[in-house]
Amino acid sequence: MESTIFEMRPIGFVNSPLMETGQVPKGCGATHTAEGVLEILPEYEEGLTDIEGFSHLFVIWVFHRSEGYVLLGKPPTDDRPHGVFATRSPYRPNPIAVTVVELIRRDGRRLYVRGVDMLDGTPVLDIKPYLSSVPAEKLRRGWLAEAEKRKQ
Amino acid sequence: MESTIFEMRPIGFVNSPLMETGQVPKGCGATHTAEGVLEILPEYEEGLTDIEGFSHLFVIWVFHRSEGYVLLGKPPTDDRPHGVFATRSPYRPNPIAVTVVELIRRDGRRLYVRGVDMLDGTPVLDIKPYLSSVPAEKLRRGWLAEAEKRKQ
Repeated sequence: MESTIFEMRPIGFVNSPLMETGQVPKGCGATHTAEGVLEILPEYEEGLTDIEGFSHLFVIWVFHRSEGYVLLGKPPTDDRPHGVFATRSPYRPNPIAVTVVELIRRDGRRLYVRGVDMLDGTPVLDIKPYLSSVPAEKLRRGWLAEAEKRKQ
Repeated sequence: MESTIFEMRPIGFVNSPLMETGQVPKGCGATHTAEGVLEILPEYEEGLTDIEGFSHLFVIWVFHRSEGYVLLGKPPTDDRPHGVFATRSPYRPNPIAVTVVELIRRDGRRLYVRGVDMLDGTPVLDIKPYLSSVPAEKLRRGWLAEAEKRKQ
């Protein structure tokens, strides 16, 4: 089981104004308001049926420019190292990312969205409706909250 | 680019009380309160450093018992068909799932969590901290909200 390999293929690609990693807002208080387009491949267009009724979507995508992984590393938000599974680092054992975007409109197989933090040309593996939230008052954000406090 | 294949490997497996798909709560108002354990492989344990500070985690996992995909299908929550990317169906072009769980405690490379909807033995691809929520009042839930209304 541990040696099982799962093969994933792009269902589409991101058109993004972010051309280089340096353009992606990072660190404490970074907000992602860039608009972009998720362009789904023609053979999957039918899978988008009724997606326009949702205000927010999960986009599952690949850090396709990232190579290798670092189990313990310093994120841009702190000067102390943390485990990769406690960060959103691109250097992960499986280079998968999850972004919540706001769906502005759909035009055929193109989804116009707000909140992209992917580079232009990023492969998309999956899209899901965002159905519910954990209330803010129930969230604990560990080292990130502490790092933010130290910087104030 | 469209024919690129990304190879993903398990970083661990789920110990879950859910042994068969029929035991997973589905449909309108389904709640996931089952407790389980994410057992991370020894070689990735260091990547869990500081994860215990977070109350909620994203778990990215594989629908490993699902075969093939259905672009337009009826979910258990409705009697009308919807596109796969507007549902959480396991029959997806890439059989990836995302679940938000509450972290109860960590014991070495074992994460005790609440809210599992994975079957026992499910391969985990990635774990990320859950950092922020979309406020409930900003969410639109399309066909699902309509289906819930029709059933009232």
